[in-house]
Amino acid sequence: MAAQKTGIPKGTRDFLPLQTVRRNYIFNTIKKVFELYGYMPIETPAMENLSTLMGKYGEEGDKLLFKILNLGNFLSSVSNEELNKKEINKLALQICGKGLRYDLTVPFARYVVQNLNEITFPFKRYQIQPVWRGDKPQKGRYREFYQCDADVIGSNSLINEVELIQIIDQVFNRLNIKVTIKLNNRKILLGAAENINEIDKFNDITIAVDKLDKIGTDKVVEELKEKGLQPQSIEKLLNIFSYSGSNREKIGMLKKAIINNETGKSGVEEIESIFNYIEDIKLKNKVELDISLARGLNYYTGTIIEVKADDFEIGSICGGGRYDDLTGIFGLPDISGVGISFGADRIYDVLEGLNLFPEETVTTTKVMFVNFGEKELKYCFQVVEKIREEGISCEIYPEPVKMKKQMTYADKNNIAYVALVGENEIKNNTITLKNMRSGVQEELNLSRLIEKLCAV
Amino acid sequence: MAAQKTGIPKGTRDFLPLQTVRRNYIFNTIKKVFELYGYMPIETPAMENLSTLMGKYGEEGDKLLFKILNLGNFLSSVSNEELNKKEINKLALQICGKGLRYDLTVPFARYVVQNLNEITFPFKRYQIQPVWRGDKPQKGRYREFYQCDADVIGSNSLINEVELIQIIDQVFNRLNIKVTIKLNNRKILLGAAENINEIDKFNDITIAVDKLDKIGTDKVVEELKEKGLQPQSIEKLLNIFSYSGSNREKIGMLKKAIINNETGKSGVEEIESIFNYIEDIKLKNKVELDISLARGLNYYTGTIIEVKADDFEIGSICGGGRYDDLTGIFGLPDISGVGISFGADRIYDVLEGLNLFPEETVTTTKVMFVNFGEKELKYCFQVVEKIREEGISCEIYPEPVKMKKQMTYADKNNIAYVALVGENEIKNNTITLKNMRSGVQEELNLSRLIEKLCAV
Repeated sequence: MAAQKTGIPKGTRDFLPLQTVRRNYIFNTIKKVFELYGYMPIETPAMENLSTLMGKYGEEGDKLLFKILNLGNFLSSVSNEELNKKEINKLALQICGKGLRYDLTVPFARYVVQNLNEITFPFKRYQIQPVWRGDKPQKGRYREFYQCDADVIGSNSLINEVELIQIIDQVFNRLNIKVTIKLNNRKILLGAAENINEIDKFNDITIAVDKLDKIGTDKVVEELKEKGLQPQSIEKLLNIFSYSGSNREKIGMLKKAIINNETGKSGVEEIESIFNYIEDIKLKNKVELDISLARGLNYYTGTIIEVKADDFEIGSICGGGRYDDLTGIFGLPDISGVGISFGADRIYDVLEGLNLFPEETVTTTKVMFVNFGEKELKYCFQVVEKIREEGISCEIYPEPVKMKKQMTYADKNNIAYVALVGENEIKNNTITLKNMRSGVQEELNLSRLIEKLCAV
Repeated sequence: MAAQKTGIPKGTRDFLPLQTVRRNYIFNTIKKVFELYGYMPIETPAMENLSTLMGKYGEEGDKLLFKILNLGNFLSSVSNEELNKKEINKLALQICGKGLRYDLTVPFARYVVQNLNEITFPFKRYQIQPVWRGDKPQKGRYREFYQCDADVIGSNSLINEVELIQIIDQVFNRLNIKVTIKLNNRKILLGAAENINEIDKFNDITIAVDKLDKIGTDKVVEELKEKGLQPQSIEKLLNIFSYSGSNREKIGMLKKAIINNETGKSGVEEIESIFNYIEDIKLKNKVELDISLARGLNYYTGTIIEVKADDFEIGSICGGGRYDDLTGIFGLPDISGVGISFGADRIYDVLEGLNLFPEETVTTTKVMFVNFGEKELKYCFQVVEKIREEGISCEIYPEPVKMKKQMTYADKNNIAYVALVGENEIKNNTITLKNMRSGVQEELNLSRLIEKLCAV
């Protein structure tokens, strides 16, 4: 057969061993912390019925969903007339019944409703799985990427928010990334909009205000004017959002500024209550009330959270918030929840950019035994089993080829130690261990060797 | 909005927390052993170009591939004439450029060729990812399921086979499943076919002989007759396959029976050499030479491996073998490899059927603190942080609701311990710990509590 060209779909990636080990380091760190706080893992299928997914991510989202062609005669339910109309969007739904999940939130909502009998509320779940989006691929944006979500649903208590903030703090502390955890509450934004009688324009306001950091006050004023807000209202609004000071000072200011608005007041109370809890806990990272923080997603109704790395420019690396009605669309109303999502790809870039990946994330093998031939091999087979019993990753080079080739293999695979067993070692019942970095060699008996490998 | 019906595509599954924890226990066990032997993880995209997948799994496989509709105007390159011909198979390839991977082997072959510059041979990789097949769903057969593969490529050495057998032994030993590891070599089958001058019918012979266990000698004879083999040849053939005795005795018999055939001889030598190595290693499970073992997959050319559970009827739970030319189709010929694949779903069924899941695979949380209200909460927040620092999973019930509701939650989630902190405990600087199974309660200080939780 003729050779085929290789390649993978645009926006997708192969992960080499080094990258996979490092990605697993991120996933495992996040997982461990989720579990430490009692979150339990679930999984949902990669494919969902299109009826579950369509209409949940806006018109644009519908277009970006990867749809899966029905098996067999996919045209069987399409009439010739319909076919020749070539109405792409309609036709797509006739020939495709399934699609790849676009995020983990909608499948989670579907899951809760479908498995209601198996769930005890409050339900704390985490989910680390890939999602697929047909966005135009660009630097840092892929068509297949992992989301790492933790949510509690069925509880209104703010201690859930506090716990999620602790989780964020713990994860980034374990990853050695210094971050700022920014908090806000949608109700404060809502209250501010109500305050100036512009609740109809709430979406425009949040979108504009969210950009204060990026485009500056003047441009935000301009944008708000274009949306039809009065200069007086804009001034009143921006007064709140541009207030600087400590978290406590900001809360004090807000209390005065939106005193007459019930929604706003309850938002301020919630934020204050969260900060009260946080003060008693020793967090390793800064938590900051950022009144202009809006986050695009419409379904947030209370607390919103966004995390940025202090020493690396890359946008938010974790985010989340509270939503009042996750499962309503699937027939289960009034289930409140709060959740966070870690952006594994960006976290990878931060760790790489700041050179923060720990040394052990370069390979799985700690020591490679050089293969000198059949006689030595028998001895080696005994020894490596003992080493593996201690949990130390270990391999024998499979072919008795030239030493140089074997050493190159160890080197290219970042293997830290090479073990040499020749006639002498067999006679002495020892192993010669070579540190590949320093080049130092020493002849050790098995128990000293294991001691040494366990210590590093 | 009106409530939508929930549901997931036929043949796919939601995994509840308990199932996910248990599945992760299987995956982690396999992963740990793979890494102990120096196998490194890689990942490939869920979607591959259809050109990579088509034609690799037979005509039937092509039909069972899940194809992904092109984004945007998927009909743009289809003429009206072509459209109205409704040639389903052809049309599918015009409107779909991508498909979901069907196994991990073909993507791995594609990966090796595509990433050749980044790979040092011999390349030892493992890959644990889902695959998708449009088979008719039935008990134990799903349209989305995980494969757990380990392969070494670029080495002909039989110690790779030995290592993979050790890995199989280790994995099932750690999972507490007693198994029989069956070995054979395709060259022995080939030699047997050559011996009776029926090499043209090699496929028919292997298919028939593979069924000796299931349908018995008489029916196999019948099948072979139907395929046009002479009674004399059939007798000669079945003489070999029905030989019983120890592994050594079988090898001795084979040496005599196919002495004149080079292919067969080298197969017997390979098997003998593997058994020589194995004798020196203490394996926990039986290894058995099963001369009639054929395995359906055509690409195997040397050793074949199949694993069955001794105490549970379910078919093979792990299998593999050596192939001479994995990457040839992608333009890189003569790369030999050997690999194994664990069937996680069947292993799950064995563990469940034999009640072998360890106790710690019921939940992630070890202790839940009852929520008595704000005052107690402050104390609890301090305590749980200390407990988590010791790596013990721990949660606070988020709402100060009735005790009974909180205990039900702990019970339903299989949480082993509940911690109670009231006025007394705060005064005494203690925690009351209740063992949910035995009902026993004791008042402990923090360090004694941690000691206790670490010990169980």
